[in-house]
Amino acid sequence: MKQINVGIVGFGTVGAGVAECLLINGRLIGERTGVEPVLKRVADLDVSSDRGVSLPAGILTPDARAVIEAGDIDVVVELVGGTTVARDFILRALRSGKPVVTANKALLAEHGDEIFAAAEQSSADVYYEGSVGGGIPVIKAVREGLVGNRTEQILGILNGTCNYILTRMEKEQVPFAEVLAEAQAKGYAEADPSLDIDGVDTAHKATILASLAYGEWFGMDPLYIEGIRGIALQDIGYARALGYKIKLLAIIKQDDSNVQMRVHPALVPATSLLGHVEGVFNAVWIRGVPVGETLYYGRGAGRAATSSAVVADIVDVGLNLKFGSHRRVPGFRAHRGYAQIVPMSEVRTRYYLRLQVADRPGVLAMIAAIFGRKDISIASVTQQEVSQNTVPLVILTHAAREADMQQALDEIRALPVVDEPPVLIRIEDLPRG
Amino acid sequence: MKQINVGIVGFGTVGAGVAECLLINGRLIGERTGVEPVLKRVADLDVSSDRGVSLPAGILTPDARAVIEAGDIDVVVELVGGTTVARDFILRALRSGKPVVTANKALLAEHGDEIFAAAEQSSADVYYEGSVGGGIPVIKAVREGLVGNRTEQILGILNGTCNYILTRMEKEQVPFAEVLAEAQAKGYAEADPSLDIDGVDTAHKATILASLAYGEWFGMDPLYIEGIRGIALQDIGYARALGYKIKLLAIIKQDDSNVQMRVHPALVPATSLLGHVEGVFNAVWIRGVPVGETLYYGRGAGRAATSSAVVADIVDVGLNLKFGSHRRVPGFRAHRGYAQIVPMSEVRTRYYLRLQVADRPGVLAMIAAIFGRKDISIASVTQQEVSQNTVPLVILTHAAREADMQQALDEIRALPVVDEPPVLIRIEDLPRG
Repeated sequence: MKQINVGIVGFGTVGAGVAECLLINGRLIGERTGVEPVLKRVADLDVSSDRGVSLPAGILTPDARAVIEAGDIDVVVELVGGTTVARDFILRALRSGKPVVTANKALLAEHGDEIFAAAEQSSADVYYEGSVGGGIPVIKAVREGLVGNRTEQILGILNGTCNYILTRMEKEQVPFAEVLAEAQAKGYAEADPSLDIDGVDTAHKATILASLAYGEWFGMDPLYIEGIRGIALQDIGYARALGYKIKLLAIIKQDDSNVQMRVHPALVPATSLLGHVEGVFNAVWIRGVPVGETLYYGRGAGRAATSSAVVADIVDVGLNLKFGSHRRVPGFRAHRGYAQIVPMSEVRTRYYLRLQVADRPGVLAMIAAIFGRKDISIASVTQQEVSQNTVPLVILTHAAREADMQQALDEIRALPVVDEPPVLIRIEDLPRG
Repeated sequence: MKQINVGIVGFGTVGAGVAECLLINGRLIGERTGVEPVLKRVADLDVSSDRGVSLPAGILTPDARAVIEAGDIDVVVELVGGTTVARDFILRALRSGKPVVTANKALLAEHGDEIFAAAEQSSADVYYEGSVGGGIPVIKAVREGLVGNRTEQILGILNGTCNYILTRMEKEQVPFAEVLAEAQAKGYAEADPSLDIDGVDTAHKATILASLAYGEWFGMDPLYIEGIRGIALQDIGYARALGYKIKLLAIIKQDDSNVQMRVHPALVPATSLLGHVEGVFNAVWIRGVPVGETLYYGRGAGRAATSSAVVADIVDVGLNLKFGSHRRVPGFRAHRGYAQIVPMSEVRTRYYLRLQVADRPGVLAMIAAIFGRKDISIASVTQQEVSQNTVPLVILTHAAREADMQQALDEIRALPVVDEPPVLIRIEDLPRG
């Protein structure tokens, strides 16, 4: 039995989960694969807190170098997080030819190029299944299981905190700010939640998936990003009445060899599979040719789920060490799978628009005229009778150009009959069950 | 660029799909992976029918040996199907040291041991992603992506024909025999549909998944198998009223290190993800420790979807050839991941029971007394008012032992007040959305 010595840097939530998984399932993994991962060393500045896992004596050290530079460590598992020391640790490991496993999506999204170049230079492996979709083996699906496909669309619910907030808003009619405050109090959401709720974390994951699908490490620049702060209970209610749910989506699409990538809240059919993904769960819907529709679902974060992904990567590294097949599936391989990136202004999509308008004749005609001039076709209009001076008006459009819609919106906003700022949410049509 | 020469035996539906995928996406695959699969030869006795794909001249041959034994073929793709000539072709290829890719679940389920032994003896690869779940990369998920997990449960909708029939019965209130006849007329179901509707095809796939999860190539013997011929519209209607749908499930579970595996129709919560899997789609729900719940969804059969899986296997073989890492993930690796198989009689599950009983006092008491003696606890009873002499009585039970339920059923069947044979369908509780 080939044994490989695992060194973990970062003994936080996921680090503790990986250590626990290796201690409990290490032997089973060895029997299954012929490679037994053995937990050899764990580095963390905090060597005293209880993480609910008891490490054998002598494993825990405050010295990261004792993992990264040690001759008896076969694979370095970076679970520090963030983009500063983690970057330094990974680069040092790779430059010394040591394979690295990480779940650090922010680092890969922002410094992937540098990391993959370092890995290539020293012919070292770098695996990162845990960076997208937590325990869901979706990176392996994209670059191995679906390797024979041209990728048409990837739609992902990739942030558990956002999906938890939107699900609770929908199920319990609790407004955004209140759910967020509760989630923070319970530790489900960070004290500074902006990375999650402003869509940045989802964008980190989206750019990784897009890069693998289309062969360029895109980084964050090509992404349009919008979070869920603006989602009101009213909109969730109207969406539901119209047969939709609101989800924060990563959207990656290829048309005519051009690629668009964006992160924003979207109405999805309530009866679609993505519409059924609730709470902290993540899901990635991928349509390829020839495979057609596929979907991958599971817990998108947390100690247990993410440790499953990290351990799978450790095994891949271990098999490569055993067979001398390092970089069999390299960290990233450039290929030109697209012509150009579609700027957000040129994206065509459907829209949900909610306006608060004066309750008097001619208002709808004014708005419809603006849409008409911009070549935006209205699919449905909902206006409910209320006993107030202003009434909510909900319009769904057919597919229109984003720039046209934004110009129309500017004109609509300027109308004296329009109260309150308009709410615009894009619609993503998916197969309905 | 490393090129690998692909030889296909069997130019039927899937064979044509694989050929087409290689011709269209071969270069893209090469750019993505560093290994370009090149279609070199296709063998089929029928060299004249149009399969909708135009092969370059000189590729199609009636001679299977020109693929299996040719020195210039790097990987043999067996897509003949069945368990006779396909077995011979695969064994001959493996014995000459040639790697094999197949999608043949029946052959693997029935002769896997022999095939894996031959592969081991000549150190050849054998991959079979297409054998389970069509285009869904679920074999890769089970033995690579989830390799760090102890598998608690695998529940699968693995036969598209059955799911199509059950979905149409439910949506359109068309009885089983009628949907089946239509499906046969349209070519969605085989002329002899028994492999599908009697659960045998699902069982073939179930035993492959169970074998990979628990480390013994089980074959068909340990499986309890029941198909969908007995499902009536009435039962679909009652199930729906109770919040369930009826699906043909592969059920693989481990409790206390014992493993149960069975294939039968089951009530699943209508709001669960498996409850939302409709038409010809397949899905596999896997719960592991530490990963928790995961689900994999896609088209379970057909030319396009299955070709995606086969091509992914070809790439795995190609990478192994390039890196000399053959048998990095061998066809099958035995390990003892369980203590014993639970016989069906000892399985504990919940039940749906529909009886047609005389509409007179004391009937329910008699039935309840039988259940009481067998220690079967009733969860709910539904009896509707009708203007006939007999009334339908629908009982849901809490978990009970199969042997006890079968004995109770024998006693109930013998009651003079019970008309028509009772209908018993098991219930599989899953997380509800």
